Amino acid sequence: MSAVVERLIAERLPDWIALRRDIHKHPELGFLEFRTASRAAATLERLGYAVQVGHEVMDPAAMVGVPAPQAQEDALAEALALGAEKRWTDRMVGGMTGVVGTLKRGKGPTVALRFDIDALPLREASERQHGPARSGYASTRPGVMHACGHDGHVAIGLAVAEVAASPDLRWAGTLKLIFQPAEEGGRGAKPMVEAGVVDDADWFFAAHLGCSLPSGKVAAAAEKMLFSTKWDVAFTGRAAHAAGNPHEGRNALLAGAQAALGLHGIARHGHATTHVNVGVMTAGSGRNVIAERASLLIEVRGDSDDSLDYMEGRAREVIEGAAKAQGCAHEIRPVGKTIGETSTARASAAVSEVAGAVPGIGEVLPAWEIGGGDDAAYFMRRMRERGKEACYFVVGSDLAACHHAVLFDFQEKDIETGTRLYAGLIERVAR
Amino acid sequence: MSAVVERLIAERLPDWIALRRDIHKHPELGFLEFRTASRAAATLERLGYAVQVGHEVMDPAAMVGVPAPQAQEDALAEALALGAEKRWTDRMVGGMTGVVGTLKRGKGPTVALRFDIDALPLREASERQHGPARSGYASTRPGVMHACGHDGHVAIGLAVAEVAASPDLRWAGTLKLIFQPAEEGGRGAKPMVEAGVVDDADWFFAAHLGCSLPSGKVAAAAEKMLFSTKWDVAFTGRAAHAAGNPHEGRNALLAGAQAALGLHGIARHGHATTHVNVGVMTAGSGRNVIAERASLLIEVRGDSDDSLDYMEGRAREVIEGAAKAQGCAHEIRPVGKTIGETSTARASAAVSEVAGAVPGIGEVLPAWEIGGGDDAAYFMRRMRERGKEACYFVVGSDLAACHHAVLFDFQEKDIETGTRLYAGLIERVAR
Amino acid sequence: MSAVVERLIAERLPDWIALRRDIHKHPELGFLEFRTASRAAATLERLGYAVQVGHEVMDPAAMVGVPAPQAQEDALAEALALGAEKRWTDRMVGGMTGVVGTLKRGKGPTVALRFDIDALPLREASERQHGPARSGYASTRPGVMHACGHDGHVAIGLAVAEVAASPDLRWAGTLKLIFQPAEEGGRGAKPMVEAGVVDDADWFFAAHLGCSLPSGKVAAAAEKMLFSTKWDVAFTGRAAHAAGNPHEGRNALLAGAQAALGLHGIARHGHATTHVNVGVMTAGSGRNVIAERASLLIEVRGDSDDSLDYMEGRAREVIEGAAKAQGCAHEIRPVGKTIGETSTARASAAVSEVAGAVPGIGEVLPAWEIGGGDDAAYFMRRMRERGKEACYFVVGSDLAACHHAVLFDFQEKDIETGTRLYAGLIERVAR
Amino acid sequence: MSAVVERLIAERLPDWIALRRDIHKHPELGFLEFRTASRAAATLERLGYAVQVGHEVMDPAAMVGVPAPQAQEDALAEALALGAEKRWTDRMVGGMTGVVGTLKRGKGPTVALRFDIDALPLREASERQHGPARSGYASTRPGVMHACGHDGHVAIGLAVAEVAASPDLRWAGTLKLIFQPAEEGGRGAKPMVEAGVVDDADWFFAAHLGCSLPSGKVAAAAEKMLFSTKWDVAFTGRAAHAAGNPHEGRNALLAGAQAALGLHGIARHGHATTHVNVGVMTAGSGRNVIAERASLLIEVRGDSDDSLDYMEGRAREVIEGAAKAQGCAHEIRPVGKTIGETSTARASAAVSEVAGAVPGIGEVLPAWEIGGGDDAAYFMRRMRERGKEACYFVVGSDLAACHHAVLFDFQEKDIETGTRLYAGLIERVAR
Repeated sequence: MSAVVERLIAERLPDWIALRRDIHKHPELGFLEFRTASRAAATLERLGYAVQVGHEVMDPAAMVGVPAPQAQEDALAEALALGAEKRWTDRMVGGMTGVVGTLKRGKGPTVALRFDIDALPLREASERQHGPARSGYASTRPGVMHACGHDGHVAIGLAVAEVAASPDLRWAGTLKLIFQPAEEGGRGAKPMVEAGVVDDADWFFAAHLGCSLPSGKVAAAAEKMLFSTKWDVAFTGRAAHAAGNPHEGRNALLAGAQAALGLHGIARHGHATTHVNVGVMTAGSGRNVIAERASLLIEVRGDSDDSLDYMEGRAREVIEGAAKAQGCAHEIRPVGKTIGETSTARASAAVSEVAGAVPGIGEVLPAWEIGGGDDAAYFMRRMRERGKEACYFVVGSDLAACHHAVLFDFQEKDIETGTRLYAGLIERVAR
Repeated sequence: MSAVVERLIAERLPDWIALRRDIHKHPELGFLEFRTASRAAATLERLGYAVQVGHEVMDPAAMVGVPAPQAQEDALAEALALGAEKRWTDRMVGGMTGVVGTLKRGKGPTVALRFDIDALPLREASERQHGPARSGYASTRPGVMHACGHDGHVAIGLAVAEVAASPDLRWAGTLKLIFQPAEEGGRGAKPMVEAGVVDDADWFFAAHLGCSLPSGKVAAAAEKMLFSTKWDVAFTGRAAHAAGNPHEGRNALLAGAQAALGLHGIARHGHATTHVNVGVMTAGSGRNVIAERASLLIEVRGDSDDSLDYMEGRAREVIEGAAKAQGCAHEIRPVGKTIGETSTARASAAVSEVAGAVPGIGEVLPAWEIGGGDDAAYFMRRMRERGKEACYFVVGSDLAACHHAVLFDFQEKDIETGTRLYAGLIERVAR
Repeated sequence: MSAVVERLIAERLPDWIALRRDIHKHPELGFLEFRTASRAAATLERLGYAVQVGHEVMDPAAMVGVPAPQAQEDALAEALALGAEKRWTDRMVGGMTGVVGTLKRGKGPTVALRFDIDALPLREASERQHGPARSGYASTRPGVMHACGHDGHVAIGLAVAEVAASPDLRWAGTLKLIFQPAEEGGRGAKPMVEAGVVDDADWFFAAHLGCSLPSGKVAAAAEKMLFSTKWDVAFTGRAAHAAGNPHEGRNALLAGAQAALGLHGIARHGHATTHVNVGVMTAGSGRNVIAERASLLIEVRGDSDDSLDYMEGRAREVIEGAAKAQGCAHEIRPVGKTIGETSTARASAAVSEVAGAVPGIGEVLPAWEIGGGDDAAYFMRRMRERGKEACYFVVGSDLAACHHAVLFDFQEKDIETGTRLYAGLIERVAR
Repeated sequence: MSAVVERLIAERLPDWIALRRDIHKHPELGFLEFRTASRAAATLERLGYAVQVGHEVMDPAAMVGVPAPQAQEDALAEALALGAEKRWTDRMVGGMTGVVGTLKRGKGPTVALRFDIDALPLREASERQHGPARSGYASTRPGVMHACGHDGHVAIGLAVAEVAASPDLRWAGTLKLIFQPAEEGGRGAKPMVEAGVVDDADWFFAAHLGCSLPSGKVAAAAEKMLFSTKWDVAFTGRAAHAAGNPHEGRNALLAGAQAALGLHGIARHGHATTHVNVGVMTAGSGRNVIAERASLLIEVRGDSDDSLDYMEGRAREVIEGAAKAQGCAHEIRPVGKTIGETSTARASAAVSEVAGAVPGIGEVLPAWEIGGGDDAAYFMRRMRERGKEACYFVVGSDLAACHHAVLFDFQEKDIETGTRLYAGLIERVAR
């Protein structure tokens, strides 16, 4: 990288950190990222990128788990109040908050980079030990928090946009910067893939900050990206007066409780990494009424189709058994599915090679188990099907607490590492 | 009862049934009964009663379980839109929706009658087999339903108000008609007792429709009114990424599930009637996050202080054990308590005597197990402490489904039975 | 009762207490009471009764829950070593340990008295606070204990045999003293009823010591004798290496655990007394093997056919649900059933009348809830079907701990009370 | 290997298979392998080995989980009846069923080979699809089965003894063949290590048949041998009559059930392989008694000290919570612990090299995850501490069902593979 680019990055870093803090302060849940997406679109436009949003980059037929209209309206109103631009959000109806910026320069391959932008339904910690709280940029939206580092991904993405737009970065071809909504729940990638966003790409890269890899290390591929299945489960029993006629009730709350304990107790696979989680349970309507309804949001994961099948099969039995035991009806509604994919050797090698030259990266590992999934895998599968190159890599960052914890925080200096790495990759492959 | 009164009742019955249907169509949860209370106040005023509401009849210091300010505001706005009068609701701030109408006539004892007015958080059935649905007066407020017959109690109360105001009903003394909010949860009676509402009463009567006693029967006392304790229980664990770092989480949802199952599994007392219910459980925030919080709304009941103590003691152990097992913290917040009371012999005898003469009442039982509690017991205890007479009786009514069920419905003709019985009681004791 | 009889009772009481202690020291489980039955038979014979045992008084086709042949052999060998007489036990093959002694005197009605003789599978307490331990007559058979007072019943039965055989007790007719095995589990009465043991009886009486009724009180009828159903439940899964191939196992132990918790959590009936118990659970074979089998011994009870049906129905669902949830097969094997019965008015009146005259009985209650069942109900039902008189009464006794507790003990002086009461009844009805 | 040795192996193979079948037919649980050990000792003696047994090769102070004296006596009597020699078993008192055969030949290193000999508490399948059942050598001891292939290990061990004793196998030094009892439960290795059995060894090898590795493959090291902790857990509540006084009981069976479900529901570690199993649960004494006692045999595993610590910590919380929730006392008794170890590079390389030359071995993998542990790790740790070489390798074998399943069976031809491999190793390192 030229000294000019190095200087640009050093100069602009404080602004990118400020950007990250602003995004962190205003977190938005999946398919509701109106303000974040508007910000990305506006920035890309200002930098000279051709910007596509909404229908242009998302296939609504492939969207699942979209929040209710009222929730969309509320989120939009708040986003507008907080500075989102109506000219962009008008084009994001129905939760289509994906944004793609395209920049062409001479003749060369098409390189697509993916940055995910959504937050999580968590109440952020307010203790002083927590950086965002201490420094005044903790979430201002109760119950929503950037607890997975996607705020950092947004900052890196827009930093890369700026660096790549500089004539001092040497590359030729087409650059597509993909800002993807709703990575949590594995819902946002598929509609963008189905809209053809990477159908012209020769190279695809996506990355995650953290994942238990310390600052100063990079892994050139994610190992064991987990396959996952997400279900909304509903139990329906019969309400009755809890003291007068308990025997006439059929208790959906107890069916839900039993299912939750049973699901967490499924024997894990002996030869595969498998997980199960009941993340949310709501049941019942009144204290002195036998609960008529219960709903559970669950996911099962496995590191292969086979092990995921095993988990699904057992989960189904547990849920049916819980319903049966309480005399309740039940319904299992599939609401999302993520797949696992592996990086191609050439794309991984490019990451290794570039990372080895980035100052501050002390060690480059060939692979790292990320202990979860990322629906970037849908982009990767499309690339593989098209015989093209794709890599999901990990940018290490010392974490204050694990991902999805209310004390989660990463090292802001690693925004710089990520930016340099992506910029280097562009120079490396777009030529 | 004179033939004139008989005629009055026969003539007005269709209106009282229409009133019941109107109340049924617009159910209001405890401490939010702005429209129902406004209607009662206006009617009493029109009939010549001195009407007291809000602060005049409720001690806010004794109120627990009051809905949040936002919920109050929403309910009030809706009530006003549906015809509640602002001049009444203005005096019901903070959920003080109790109403007392007082009528004096000559010299005689003070007789207090209690009618409860609140609905339940249930989604009413929409099947055609369900009378209110078939006849077009099912609840128009989603998730709220008169599933315990308090709509009938309101109708009876205002019918009695009218009959008693007629010069043809022979009585002397002071009549106090108490329209009490928030009987469900056992929250509304105590604030009215503490405000001194029955401190001048010589006789107190309250009744319930149904309670598994068929139409045509009356029981002159409630047997085994259950003591109950209501707790809000919270578990706090630690959020974590469900696939990446499950071992760093502490699962509050599982603590809640285990507590729910454990509570329902407490050994019932061998020599007493005891019950436990977890009516509501909510836990977790995101599908792929180990749930950090869970909350349970529970109640335990017993037919004596001793058996209630036993249930409380075991419930406490179960909750502590569940928290311990999941490495979570827990908090038990008491939010209500109802007591049991027994009717006095003289008041019960009066009911028996009067009921024996009411047409349509085929059998008068000395007592009936109501299989639950009623916070009317607080009024009764105050009467007993003051050496006065009190009776809680049951007006049988064939039910379509058990109390608190979404198909609950009673026989509207029993509004007439109840009205006649109360009117007869006034004639019998107020002289 | 004549003074001579009074003197006889006073003189012999210490021997009957010694007898009780001997029986207590050598408890025998149901259908294995070889020594106890042999002792009863020998005593009756010595007193002049015609003695019938085994096939003569039991119908083997009606026997369920008979211990395995090996257990019978072991128990028999031990009984013989401890003084049982082979001439009696030879006639008790197959666990037919029932004994009936018949004495005729002049012309009069036939009076049948039932005494149950079996112990429970409990390890008796060894603390000094426990009478039998302190006084050296605690069970010498590990894991078996008279914890329900049947040792007292045996002593009363043989005391009554002696008193009735005395010419000083005034009666005429036929006296049948029935020593019934296997009351626990409700297995012993039916085979004796089916063998026709009470088919010639005009009066039938049975009693229980204790039942939470204090010494000095007698209740002339048992109220709410519970109906019960006993099941042996088996779950079959699939064994597998717990660490290497847990996913190939199907865990019968977890199915059993879930069923146990679920059964105890069944909503109790709102209008009836109902109970459920999983008394014994055994599951699995090796620490590092996924358990292939689990078995549960359960019982459900209700105070009516209806409420028992409810409990059975729910229990069946819970068991099926648990099997389903763990991918296991299950089997429900019915192994016993007891019924409830009520005493006839005339027989109860006789008990009341006689009890009122027994010294030391301070109060005679019309009825008492015994909080359980007794298969004496099978005798009572046969009597009722034949239009004859039957009564199950309760002889109060202060208990050291509740029935079936390892610290259970009753007051030995109440052996005297029981003896006098039965003797009085004989004089009262056999004339 | 010389052609003579090859011939010897081919000739003798049917006898070794017959030996395996004989051992399979007469399986013996850990520390009760009197017949198996006697057979090994006699064979070694006949082949010219110096034979040590009992105290000479086991330190009783390091023995845990030894069966009760009665069980030892019974097993011994049966072993003698089935041909065990008293001159050997007399020296195996107290369950010290370890045997070591030593053969010296010229000057050279000391090579120790370990073969485990115990069976599992499982009832062998009797279906015709199951080889041992079809061919008439299924277990004749009900509830005990060679379901892990140790019968094959015994056959290989004695085959190797014979081949090594042949002058045609070229080696020099000292050969120690260790026949170890009680590998299941991880109890037998430590007492032999503590007795100094490998304190003079330069090389140590142990192997397992199967482990999901197919026939024709060998893995030169076991990867992720799991650390494990074994606990016996007891809950003590209070017995009571299940219908009369359930509220006076404290239910140990429910505490056990809750603990079992809770333990299986512990969140598995996100970065480590962890397991938990409740293999056996027994609770309660009588159907109509609230269960006073429950006992659970459990184990937790992890692939490191850290992850095992995590599992132990959570397991402790679950057990305490279950006790608390049921008002029971609890006790956790540690009864065994296995460790993980890794093979040394030199020893693994030797296995690889030799395996590459064995006919019938098509592929040699550097390592294989065995999905469990083996207390051979205690020998390996001692070797490592002494700076010597050790390797645990896997001899693939197609299995009929997974290890510890009642249909488990391996390919008998792999006895030949194992024998050749060990023989080759002796030639390779003992020189």
